[in-house]
Amino acid sequence: GPSRVGEELRRGLDQRIWEIFYYLRSEFKKSDKEPSYKNHTIDQLIHLLAYSSNISDTQADWRKASLEALSERIQKKIDEIQNPDDCAKARVLVCNLDKQCGFGCQLHHVGYCFTVAFGEGRTLILTNDGKSWRYSKRGWSGAFLPISKCTHAAAVNGEGVASYRQNSERRVVELPIVDALQDRPKTLPLSFPKQLEDEMIKLHSNPPLYFISQFLWYLMRNNAEMEKVIEKAVSNVPFGEGPIVGIQVRRTDKIGTEASFHSVDEYMEWTEIWFRVQELRRGHPLKRRVFVASDDASVLPETKKKYSNYEVFGDVDIADTAKLMSRYSDASMYGVVTDIQLLSRCDYLVCTFSSQVCRMGYELMQVRRPDGEAFHSLDDLYYYGGQHDHQQIVIEDHVPERDNEIELKVGDSVGVAGNHWDGYSKGKNRRTQRQGLYPSYKVIEKWRIIDFPVFNN
Amino acid sequence: GPSRVGEELRRGLDQRIWEIFYYLRSEFKKSDKEPSYKNHTIDQLIHLLAYSSNISDTQADWRKASLEALSERIQKKIDEIQNPDDCAKARVLVCNLDKQCGFGCQLHHVGYCFTVAFGEGRTLILTNDGKSWRYSKRGWSGAFLPISKCTHAAAVNGEGVASYRQNSERRVVELPIVDALQDRPKTLPLSFPKQLEDEMIKLHSNPPLYFISQFLWYLMRNNAEMEKVIEKAVSNVPFGEGPIVGIQVRRTDKIGTEASFHSVDEYMEWTEIWFRVQELRRGHPLKRRVFVASDDASVLPETKKKYSNYEVFGDVDIADTAKLMSRYSDASMYGVVTDIQLLSRCDYLVCTFSSQVCRMGYELMQVRRPDGEAFHSLDDLYYYGGQHDHQQIVIEDHVPERDNEIELKVGDSVGVAGNHWDGYSKGKNRRTQRQGLYPSYKVIEKWRIIDFPVFNN
Ligand SMILES: Nc1nc2c(ncn2[C@@H]2O[C@H](COP(=O)(O)OP(=O)(O)O)[C@@H](O)[C@H]2O)c(=O)[nH]1
Ligand SMILES: Nc1nc2c(ncn2[C@@H]2O[C@H](COP(=O)(O)OP(=O)(O)O)[C@@H](O)[C@H]2O)c(=O)[nH]1
Repeated sequence: GPSRVGEELRRGLDQRIWEIFYYLRSEFKKSDKEPSYKNHTIDQLIHLLAYSSNISDTQADWRKASLEALSERIQKKIDEIQNPDDCAKARVLVCNLDKQCGFGCQLHHVGYCFTVAFGEGRTLILTNDGKSWRYSKRGWSGAFLPISKCTHAAAVNGEGVASYRQNSERRVVELPIVDALQDRPKTLPLSFPKQLEDEMIKLHSNPPLYFISQFLWYLMRNNAEMEKVIEKAVSNVPFGEGPIVGIQVRRTDKIGTEASFHSVDEYMEWTEIWFRVQELRRGHPLKRRVFVASDDASVLPETKKKYSNYEVFGDVDIADTAKLMSRYSDASMYGVVTDIQLLSRCDYLVCTFSSQVCRMGYELMQVRRPDGEAFHSLDDLYYYGGQHDHQQIVIEDHVPERDNEIELKVGDSVGVAGNHWDGYSKGKNRRTQRQGLYPSYKVIEKWRIIDFPVFNN
Repeated sequence: GPSRVGEELRRGLDQRIWEIFYYLRSEFKKSDKEPSYKNHTIDQLIHLLAYSSNISDTQADWRKASLEALSERIQKKIDEIQNPDDCAKARVLVCNLDKQCGFGCQLHHVGYCFTVAFGEGRTLILTNDGKSWRYSKRGWSGAFLPISKCTHAAAVNGEGVASYRQNSERRVVELPIVDALQDRPKTLPLSFPKQLEDEMIKLHSNPPLYFISQFLWYLMRNNAEMEKVIEKAVSNVPFGEGPIVGIQVRRTDKIGTEASFHSVDEYMEWTEIWFRVQELRRGHPLKRRVFVASDDASVLPETKKKYSNYEVFGDVDIADTAKLMSRYSDASMYGVVTDIQLLSRCDYLVCTFSSQVCRMGYELMQVRRPDGEAFHSLDDLYYYGGQHDHQQIVIEDHVPERDNEIELKVGDSVGVAGNHWDGYSKGKNRRTQRQGLYPSYKVIEKWRIIDFPVFNN
């Protein structure tokens, strides 16, 4: 059975939720609210959040060890498929690294190729071994370990390269970018293997994120040179001496095209909320520390100036190379990899998930540390470009309270477009075909659990 | 490790608490609140409560079985002490059943004698075997099984009866009513045995309540005649066909002396809240059912008339015998025992804990069914007459927000006088000696864990 402390916490939580219920219910009966009402409510909710996270602290070692063992198992399986006995006989999938977009976008493109290849037991090979790459004249291996012992030449072995079709008989196939893909395999995100269903759902709050992150993790194995750069950057930030929040502020070319402007204050508000919860969770005051990544070099000095109670880490030179003018260069590539790696070592991330830089930091974080919904996104939900429709299942009826809301019935499927982080999400009810807002708490995730034959036996 | 479902629920709860946080935080930023605000908040909190109770539903079988095994062990130990090998040599404690008060008060008096006797390994004996009793000419055995194989005569065996002193050398001692007790043993409620500390804290949210309830349970073992009466009453209420809320409405001589008047509507409001939580917890609509006990014969017809969507159970004849005029009679005694037994079989109790009738129903409930804070009291916290100071420990600082509030510092001990069920409790800070209100969520119970030598080996 469960532990003593676990049982105490479980029941204590329930009591505390009653307490907040009592409090609000009683407050609502008074006509003239005192000014302390809002503060009191927020304080009480922060307490509740800290208390709830204490539940997760019980059996944390077991959770950590179990998730690490699972990651190791998946990494080993990927490694096995990537290193076949005979390169010339292996079924391979060829993917072009150099998609005409930023680093995160390129890596997500390769990650998509990777999961499609893996789903069919094919070895992933980069076109020309990733030698042509807008970020570096030295190509992929200027920064990372080769993804396979098979070179492109050895693997293709003079054979004709066929366009990808699901379960094609052809030994060598090539995948287009996901937007051009006609024949979409079931294994695309947000899918995860039915063979690992039980363990993944038990050990991770977001199994599809955890699963796709394994491929990014495998891709981003640094070579010695890159490793040195990252070690140096890591040594400048006091990881391990107390919690650090990672902030990634994506600006320049993104603003007004794919995302809105968000001020430093917005990022810092959520950072501060997180620190307040953690202080109560741990029962002692915490030094405030943030690591800041951005493509806007003004963010770091602004944060340092405005938040003098914070220790602010980050490298303004990296931010400077990240601007569009100097973006496609070795220095900028080293910079973005460093930022992603450092973000993944933070305890919590605040960013806009519309940016693939932050999503990659979050992805690597999933493999690096124990599970926990350790982010606040100022815009999108976590997603993976080209993913299948992200669906949720209704667990409680909803009668619209306002014009822009939609009706929900228990069991309905909803395609979710976004969480507005105000208690509401926006989506489309598959039954009624109506689009609009609904309370986020009335749905749960509908997992896509798919056969991955490589995990048989 | 914990189960898959348990892990999912634990994380899901955390998410949902964030959701309510998002909702309220966002609402508070709007200056003009929509009328749906209050309803929405209450709905969301009820959802949260249901979700939290789902956590308790996981591993429910293990919890039930473990608690039953523990109760059995305690009952066996009580039985052993109550039935010594040689009555004439046993160390005994004599207690007078016929305290000049109601049934609940009398039983609580005997229960207090019982735990003092048990704490010293003495056999409890009733004065004159409980033959003089204001409730019945036939005495204790007209309703219950004898509490020991030793009669009063056999146990005392002509020896002089000494007044109780802690750990007295005398073989036969007699205990006064608790109010007259000078030398208060540590084992008085709200104490529980250190020998069972781990199990009790793991398996029960309120170990001292659970422990003292074992003695009431042992006392109230019905004789054949009483058993028949209760079986008949039980058969008139559809226990086992869905949840039933027990309501006990104490009026007549209590009002204005020891308690305030509460309308049927107040009891029914909390009944309805509980049913709403249960409907969400179980995921289907529930037939509304209440069992009503009262010393006021008008309560049952009023409830039936006003709450036509409820199936209302109860016996108006019993309520009629319970009024002061006819109270001290066999019929009335049978009635109150029946009411207490039926209340203890309900799934939830709504009552005033100032009444010993309801507290006894709640006590027997602890031994009868798995743990869960299954009550709403319209006035007092649970207490046991004559208990040691009920203390709590502060887990979060509090700066008074209003005049009638007191300051709290982490680690302070507070003597709690009552929970006001509006988010605040009233009590006295032992450090500052100040009395006043404080948020209930900022404290946890300070358990009294005491050596009970009878549990050694
Ligand atoms: N070093 C660094 N570079 C960034 C940052 N934000 C954007 N960039 C640069 O801008 C590119 C943005 O493209 P992409 O990675 O696809 O992310 P997205 O456009 O934000 O979704 C990155 O790959 C970097 O080259 C940042 O926080 N740090
Ligand atoms: N049958 C029945 N009798 C009651 C009820 N409430 C009060 N009584 C009678 O009134 C007495 C009240 O005395 P006591 O048991 O000490 O409880 P208290 O005065 O409510 O704390 C009971 O013992 C019964 O005889 C009730 O709900 N049902």
